[in-house]
Amino acid sequence: MALQSLFNYSTVKYMVAKNRKIGVLYRIFQLTVIGYLIGWVFVIKKGYQAIDETVDSSVVTKVKGVALTNTTGTGVHLWGPEDYVIPQQGERVLFITTNFIETPNQKLGTCSESSKVLDAICTKNEDCTQGEAFQIGNGIQTGVCLKNSRNPTGTCEIYGWCPIENSQRPEVPLLTKAENFTLYIKNFIRFSKFNFSKSNVLETHNETYLKTCLYDKIHHPYCPIFRLGDVVHKAGHNFQDMAVLGGSIGILIEWRCDLDKGYSKCHPQYSFTSMETGTTTSSVAAGYNFRYARYFKNADGEVHRTLYKVYGIHIDIIVYGTAGMFNIIPTVINIGSGLALMGAGMTICDILLLYLMKESTLYREKKFETVSRKDIRSEKQKQEKPSQQDMLMSPITTD
Amino acid sequence: MALQSLFNYSTVKYMVAKNRKIGVLYRIFQLTVIGYLIGWVFVIKKGYQAIDETVDSSVVTKVKGVALTNTTGTGVHLWGPEDYVIPQQGERVLFITTNFIETPNQKLGTCSESSKVLDAICTKNEDCTQGEAFQIGNGIQTGVCLKNSRNPTGTCEIYGWCPIENSQRPEVPLLTKAENFTLYIKNFIRFSKFNFSKSNVLETHNETYLKTCLYDKIHHPYCPIFRLGDVVHKAGHNFQDMAVLGGSIGILIEWRCDLDKGYSKCHPQYSFTSMETGTTTSSVAAGYNFRYARYFKNADGEVHRTLYKVYGIHIDIIVYGTAGMFNIIPTVINIGSGLALMGAGMTICDILLLYLMKESTLYREKKFETVSRKDIRSEKQKQEKPSQQDMLMSPITTD
Amino acid sequence: MALQSLFNYSTVKYMVAKNRKIGVLYRIFQLTVIGYLIGWVFVIKKGYQAIDETVDSSVVTKVKGVALTNTTGTGVHLWGPEDYVIPQQGERVLFITTNFIETPNQKLGTCSESSKVLDAICTKNEDCTQGEAFQIGNGIQTGVCLKNSRNPTGTCEIYGWCPIENSQRPEVPLLTKAENFTLYIKNFIRFSKFNFSKSNVLETHNETYLKTCLYDKIHHPYCPIFRLGDVVHKAGHNFQDMAVLGGSIGILIEWRCDLDKGYSKCHPQYSFTSMETGTTTSSVAAGYNFRYARYFKNADGEVHRTLYKVYGIHIDIIVYGTAGMFNIIPTVINIGSGLALMGAGMTICDILLLYLMKESTLYREKKFETVSRKDIRSEKQKQEKPSQQDMLMSPITTD
Repeated sequence: MALQSLFNYSTVKYMVAKNRKIGVLYRIFQLTVIGYLIGWVFVIKKGYQAIDETVDSSVVTKVKGVALTNTTGTGVHLWGPEDYVIPQQGERVLFITTNFIETPNQKLGTCSESSKVLDAICTKNEDCTQGEAFQIGNGIQTGVCLKNSRNPTGTCEIYGWCPIENSQRPEVPLLTKAENFTLYIKNFIRFSKFNFSKSNVLETHNETYLKTCLYDKIHHPYCPIFRLGDVVHKAGHNFQDMAVLGGSIGILIEWRCDLDKGYSKCHPQYSFTSMETGTTTSSVAAGYNFRYARYFKNADGEVHRTLYKVYGIHIDIIVYGTAGMFNIIPTVINIGSGLALMGAGMTICDILLLYLMKESTLYREKKFETVSRKDIRSEKQKQEKPSQQDMLMSPITTD
Repeated sequence: MALQSLFNYSTVKYMVAKNRKIGVLYRIFQLTVIGYLIGWVFVIKKGYQAIDETVDSSVVTKVKGVALTNTTGTGVHLWGPEDYVIPQQGERVLFITTNFIETPNQKLGTCSESSKVLDAICTKNEDCTQGEAFQIGNGIQTGVCLKNSRNPTGTCEIYGWCPIENSQRPEVPLLTKAENFTLYIKNFIRFSKFNFSKSNVLETHNETYLKTCLYDKIHHPYCPIFRLGDVVHKAGHNFQDMAVLGGSIGILIEWRCDLDKGYSKCHPQYSFTSMETGTTTSSVAAGYNFRYARYFKNADGEVHRTLYKVYGIHIDIIVYGTAGMFNIIPTVINIGSGLALMGAGMTICDILLLYLMKESTLYREKKFETVSRKDIRSEKQKQEKPSQQDMLMSPITTD
Repeated sequence: MALQSLFNYSTVKYMVAKNRKIGVLYRIFQLTVIGYLIGWVFVIKKGYQAIDETVDSSVVTKVKGVALTNTTGTGVHLWGPEDYVIPQQGERVLFITTNFIETPNQKLGTCSESSKVLDAICTKNEDCTQGEAFQIGNGIQTGVCLKNSRNPTGTCEIYGWCPIENSQRPEVPLLTKAENFTLYIKNFIRFSKFNFSKSNVLETHNETYLKTCLYDKIHHPYCPIFRLGDVVHKAGHNFQDMAVLGGSIGILIEWRCDLDKGYSKCHPQYSFTSMETGTTTSSVAAGYNFRYARYFKNADGEVHRTLYKVYGIHIDIIVYGTAGMFNIIPTVINIGSGLALMGAGMTICDILLLYLMKESTLYREKKFETVSRKDIRSEKQKQEKPSQQDMLMSPITTD
């Protein structure tokens, strides 16, 4: 008997109100929910897909091009990638020298601190504290104040690499030809959730194309070779301006892959952004520079060095993206919550029907069938003799 | 009165159809949804957990081993990690030299461009444009075409580092012993959503084990020391083949942590992948090489340099993973949407019951209780005198 | 007719049980669900927002400060950032030298292996295998066992850079002043899902502030300049202790942005963590060191080098965070699943009401209105002549 009733089908009873206003309102609401669910959630937002938002990425870069500089210190000098790209091994983050200050033949010894280090300006030896370093200075103070014809301002003497760094930065970038350098980017990505991997160097292209092409948003959107001047320009800067003080540029590679559409439809998209904040040319926030030194020994074994302060384009290749693939769980969640929302719409329509219509009292009575004390009393009587009303209203017991 | 009715319990009325077909169908659907929810969503996919898909990671590496090379140029040379690992400081991305072309004693001056630079081949001076650089050349053209016994092809003269780079790459890797180098990986991870951090260097192992072990998938799955040859082999390449031209290898460290199970159950898993695309050995897409130079000054202070073009294994250690921990929100979302889906199943069964069964008309009548115009009319009469029918049907007003 | 019934409004019929216990229970459950949904999901967890958990980030660093060292080998030496920061170009991961072992004037040749390489200890030539390298040794064995007054232990002779590295590490860090070095961090972030980018160098601050400020959790929480000693201290270490052997420190930058509140409310938060595992000082797991060499040529063109084994603070700047912005899909999912859960509560209350109450039988009869065989029989009769009961119960057909 219990087993038999297990296979009965129980379905919710409805009260049908012939009320056009509420009827139309509810149909509109239903259509809105269905439209939202199908149109927005499923078609536009692909809510039937599981999403991998974390792209694992490996980037290899290679810069090509040479440039000639002619400075008073060292004369004509040829710069190849082994010199102007730092680090040379072709990483995701790279720096391309566009301007520099060279200070050759520095030796350890004593000399006067730069007058640009404001704390170092002195008039007498007591202004200089032996053994202390200036925060942004070039060495350790000896405690002597140097003031002579070659140093009329008067600055503290320091022990350090002397002579101190030249402070005159060329106003025109020394490697102006850097604008024509090309940057080759090889990007290997992986969506670990779907075990999917791909490279931006498309396999369909032939070798010659990859050696000679140049990225162009419209004509060569998948060519992985970029002209440096174009990159800076697309990021909203003038190359020759930025080359003086240096700057930070982001090359963004976006992978937005619908894996339901297959391997070949998953392409990278390149965009370029400036990573400079604000427009000021303050020495701390703007530009990009750092120092490195090359060490030499002379015939006597004494060490001297050439110090380079280099300015240039700092390129950070940022790979991001998402991959989506059909998955039952987000599909069920989106359908389920949409359906539940439809139930919520019924609650609102009910409030209108049951409390704001002329016939509200009737509808309330019909919708809510109260089991009253009278029913309970008659129930107790029924246990003595089944009444005629019971025969009519409660078919379970009679069947 | 209103307060009292607030504590009445309203429950949905059901119509029970003694229809076995639909009953069984609906039970099957219910079991499917419950099975999906418990089996797939909760047990297999752990739908009760909040997931952190972003693992913050810090990687430190250290390579050990020495190799001897014997070249005609410089004779016998010992390579230690300070030479063959670039960069030396032990980063996440590292390069291990396996082959190289050394060009010693380059000085700035003029010489003929390589005949491998096709654009540089010339027959007369007019073929060479003074001041221009070839895109993949070694210097700036002087405008002279050099053609003599030592340069029978005839190429433009350039200003640059002369002599130009040797173009003969050794066909056998010079550092064949690199196969036995060991790579130690220290990986510190953090799941910021759960404030959980761990290292791949397991604390349970003793110091001697960590000094002497070697990673093996089966016997030493948590040993953080890898033999370079094994890594390349597991990525699907032959070490000695790859060592000639170089190549890119990814070491993937996966952290799949169920934080409900506790700290000690969270282990790294290593896998190895090739990051080469395709199988061609085209110079642009395959292999891995770059150049660096060491600068020297001779007794007269003149600068000369030794140029190295190095080929090798580029290793990118990619850390990924997810951590999950019980959270009420995804639990509710999964249960809720599963239940809502059960309601959707009822709609389908209803359609079958109400339109495709022999007794459909009756079922429709029973399920949908229409409030008709007659009801509304009798409602109006009722406001004059309560009818007997009303006593029976609308207990709310009488109670 | 069908069109007309399309605009009828069907609403679920309820049975109202005047049962206080179940009524109160269900109200409590409803309030719990509503409280959870509004309080926890929406107010605290901001469940109405779409979340971007992947922050794309670019980090640039700059270290300032100088330090003097005085070693017996090379005498007084001034260290600037170009020497002690590796790599010099200001990357996200950087190393600051705090201690070092210098081995000057190494030349390629033969000498005895260090007695610290246990495998190298020998008593006769047969103990040494020609052409083999010790795993952690300094060169290739020549097959000779050297045992003399200068090498009383007796170790194998090797071919390599001789003399071999000094093995005495200074017990006090040579660059003790490194504690006062300052680290400037420029962090540019991007939430690609919302196309939102920002820098940690706040635009509201003036230039002088950015040049002179020093990070302090309470007084200067947005100053991007950090004192190295403070960083190590906040990560739970003593600077002078860590400076001896080196160590790994993580600087965590957290961006937790509510984009509904606007651009200016999105601030970075800094924290500091040690990335050392365990407390042992084992050579393999603790500390941070690596080697690099500077190459020189003497007047005869012979190469010699100075080898540095450097110990120091390895800093990894880890940027993480989430951004949230109002989105309809998660809002609907959370509301929908909350509502569906309310339905689940009704099921539990129903079980109590229908099976555990005194009046359960009555409630069951009222809730489940069975369509019995009698109804089906009368339905068949109705097709002959409509009965009076039918007029009352099934208004759809009569209307």
